[in-house]
Amino acid sequence: MTARNVLFIMCDQLRADHLGCYGHPWLRTRNIDALAARSVCFENAFVSSGVCGPSRMSYYTGRTATSHGATWNRVPMNIGEITLGEYLARHRRSLALAGKTHVVADEDGIARMTLAGNNEALAARLRVGHFHELDRYDGHHEPGSESGYPAWLRAHGYDSARPWSDYVISVQDDAGGVHSGWKMRNVHWPSRVLEAHSETAYMTDQAIRYIEQEGDTPWALHLSYVKPHWPYVAPAPYHNLYSRDQCLPLKRSEAELVDQHPVLAAYREQEECRNFARAEVSDKVRPVYQGLIQQLDDHLGRLFDTLERLGRFKDTLIVFCADHGDFLGDHWLGEKEIFYDTVQRVPMIVYDPSPLADATRGTRERRFMSNIDVVPTVLDSLSLPIDDARIEGRSVLPLLRGEPCGDWREFVVSELDYSFRRARLILDRQPDECRGWMVRDARWKYVHWQGFRAQLFDLENDPDEFVDLGSAADLEPVREAMHRKLGEWQRAARTRVTVNDALVLRTTDVHKSKGVFYGEW
Amino acid sequence: MTARNVLFIMCDQLRADHLGCYGHPWLRTRNIDALAARSVCFENAFVSSGVCGPSRMSYYTGRTATSHGATWNRVPMNIGEITLGEYLARHRRSLALAGKTHVVADEDGIARMTLAGNNEALAARLRVGHFHELDRYDGHHEPGSESGYPAWLRAHGYDSARPWSDYVISVQDDAGGVHSGWKMRNVHWPSRVLEAHSETAYMTDQAIRYIEQEGDTPWALHLSYVKPHWPYVAPAPYHNLYSRDQCLPLKRSEAELVDQHPVLAAYREQEECRNFARAEVSDKVRPVYQGLIQQLDDHLGRLFDTLERLGRFKDTLIVFCADHGDFLGDHWLGEKEIFYDTVQRVPMIVYDPSPLADATRGTRERRFMSNIDVVPTVLDSLSLPIDDARIEGRSVLPLLRGEPCGDWREFVVSELDYSFRRARLILDRQPDECRGWMVRDARWKYVHWQGFRAQLFDLENDPDEFVDLGSAADLEPVREAMHRKLGEWQRAARTRVTVNDALVLRTTDVHKSKGVFYGEW
Repeated sequence: MTARNVLFIMCDQLRADHLGCYGHPWLRTRNIDALAARSVCFENAFVSSGVCGPSRMSYYTGRTATSHGATWNRVPMNIGEITLGEYLARHRRSLALAGKTHVVADEDGIARMTLAGNNEALAARLRVGHFHELDRYDGHHEPGSESGYPAWLRAHGYDSARPWSDYVISVQDDAGGVHSGWKMRNVHWPSRVLEAHSETAYMTDQAIRYIEQEGDTPWALHLSYVKPHWPYVAPAPYHNLYSRDQCLPLKRSEAELVDQHPVLAAYREQEECRNFARAEVSDKVRPVYQGLIQQLDDHLGRLFDTLERLGRFKDTLIVFCADHGDFLGDHWLGEKEIFYDTVQRVPMIVYDPSPLADATRGTRERRFMSNIDVVPTVLDSLSLPIDDARIEGRSVLPLLRGEPCGDWREFVVSELDYSFRRARLILDRQPDECRGWMVRDARWKYVHWQGFRAQLFDLENDPDEFVDLGSAADLEPVREAMHRKLGEWQRAARTRVTVNDALVLRTTDVHKSKGVFYGEW
Repeated sequence: MTARNVLFIMCDQLRADHLGCYGHPWLRTRNIDALAARSVCFENAFVSSGVCGPSRMSYYTGRTATSHGATWNRVPMNIGEITLGEYLARHRRSLALAGKTHVVADEDGIARMTLAGNNEALAARLRVGHFHELDRYDGHHEPGSESGYPAWLRAHGYDSARPWSDYVISVQDDAGGVHSGWKMRNVHWPSRVLEAHSETAYMTDQAIRYIEQEGDTPWALHLSYVKPHWPYVAPAPYHNLYSRDQCLPLKRSEAELVDQHPVLAAYREQEECRNFARAEVSDKVRPVYQGLIQQLDDHLGRLFDTLERLGRFKDTLIVFCADHGDFLGDHWLGEKEIFYDTVQRVPMIVYDPSPLADATRGTRERRFMSNIDVVPTVLDSLSLPIDDARIEGRSVLPLLRGEPCGDWREFVVSELDYSFRRARLILDRQPDECRGWMVRDARWKYVHWQGFRAQLFDLENDPDEFVDLGSAADLEPVREAMHRKLGEWQRAARTRVTVNDALVLRTTDVHKSKGVFYGEW
């Protein structure tokens, strides 16, 4: 059965372990949990990179960071890349956007094609990754004209040229003093916007309005929240909904700081890690981070109620996911990027409206899903063709429907290009020497770093990844085997993007039919 | 010193060992040898693929087949790829073409960009790989309107709608009987065109006319001969200039047919290999193949005389090379593709007009050169910037000028995608299971095949590559080490094509200057 609509929900920097349905003991994410109860919840969903930009471009193209070329934030994809919105457009469908994409225009590529002036419509679509922008809001900057949010805030009485800086991420203390939410020391105070005027509330409103307006016309929406990403500022009452003892314990061990891997040591010198290494910081931030998730869940309740009211659970594919997690002091790290499961593993809930998926509802799937699987899953659900010359992910519909799908992947890979980071300067490396790759299977996690020793973790005996076995002599065969998997993965990349397999099948060994008779005696 | 002009000469399917300056004992290639005597002759120049299309696209982009995406003939490059002609055009220089490129238009990419109609000029340039086509002639098909050759033949009395088929590759026996030159049994007879009207003569005329016309205006020309590529038909007197005993001995051993590698066994079942495995065939073809090279050399003499007469050796960079070799029965193979040096190693002569290169003239360079080095060498010689976000090769000018160049590459890699070949059907494999990669250093050659065991050759003790050590248990560490090099090579690919290293250097750790203050306490 073919879905009619697509609702592709992403949260930014949301850890998988910070949802009730993924085992959080205190967070009350009842709406997300209710979605999981009618969906399949992927226990082992991983992103292709623990950085917003590359992870999102993989979500949008179905291709790895190596293949789409956006190896870090602010790096445009190769102009030859095709995104979900463009695949849908080929079938007269559009992909609406409410929220964040992190798509950066390849202005050099557009200039090279002389699209500007000659083909403004296409240039404009490429600049936004072929989304139809209801309201684009990339977050953590003062929004510009791409979003209606600043004007809406002003219309609601927030009288400022910079309402995001002055209200949304500013906080007010008990004495009326105003402080910047950029400083994590201040985030226990509430935001200066009312909850109903917060980023999460605003973007949920956009989504609900769109879904209501579309009615029975088939639609596809990417609802992409900027929260719980920093600045870790929440409006009341979410700023102090949780106490420190309702947060997960810090996942770190003093042993991790002994004989540190050089790249990790460099990361731990960066400001965000030095700060998150102090209990004072994580104690302050984690309750607010949970509050932001609680807020998201409450607004998702509004959204799901709308779907229910309109009968949209009958005909809408729903994907709920995140672009990566957040260390919040785990492993003596702040932010993201590095290859621990805390950041690389993401929540992934897939709701298939087809009755064929009824048998799996509420189940948990342990096979590996990757963010590159979302594009083929969406296309498959809509019964649209999947471009096998380009798309490297696989549709997970067979997993949802208990259908045979042959061998499934036994490992996932994630990538990092830290050349834009201070860690590069600390390590005194050139921009082309800063790549790392993680290979993770059910038992082992292996990390290959350019120019440094590898890392290895035994996930069975050390699920918290505290013991780096990268130098353990007896495990060289394991590292070797994992390194081979990295090679397999690299060699399986879809590089022949201009010719699909069907054309290869049709044109194998056809030279004589084209008048070419080499090799005849 | 900056060169003013560029003459980039390519022969199609010319083995390195079939030139006097590369040691052929009978072939009298005095003009090419004279060029070598004033140039540097690269002893270890290898192509990125032993197939025309991918090798040529590497020559034109400075990138590997994995990176440019044209993994086989008729596969267009990714539309994002930039070729030498486009690099030159950015500096108001054009790259003229006389002869073959094998560039195939990415019509889907052009349609996607809606260039056709909106931007015909660019669409037209992309269709021809940004060459300015004086006369495009891809060879071994009846030429169309892209070449003036058919009309020119008719003007010279070859009265036929298909003058190439009826005259150029048709031969005439002593009794006046006409036979097809496609059939190798016939190639000892002369072509039905006069030598002065042959493909090689015609294309040399185009080049000379262009160089004369340009005068002192800076120019760049790709003179790309379709010979000595099949059909192996030569005009008199070149059809019988050499006898069988003036040809190189067949390089093959019965031992090669014992426990054959499955991919090689499949190739050897293909028609061209079954025929070339018979002495009758190589005995017939090799003398003509040598004649075609002799003819090339004679016409290159005319070309070099023109350069000398016009004083162009003072200001012209010259690259002389081939896209790959030809087995001609060696290793029980015909044609090309497979990873023996016979095919992968090519002639490569680089003439630098700068006095800085005087000290190396006539010398032989043993360091590895790759076909991906030609684009950066040309740009470097013209003092134009080399786009480090994309170009994977290195300028060899420092080697020509005895300048320090840091570590040079210690191995080369070649790739094969045999999915379009009958071998795939014989092996019953899918199109995405047909890749092979060769890693060759000074001592070893290692070949990794998808789905089959590896191959290994000890080039020191077995320079003829007769003994496949792919299963030798004691050499597992060698295979492992070579496999690691393959991984290094893959991970060094230039994937972040939209951002160059200079921009990375300028924008490392700059988030605070952009108003983003994450991680502050």
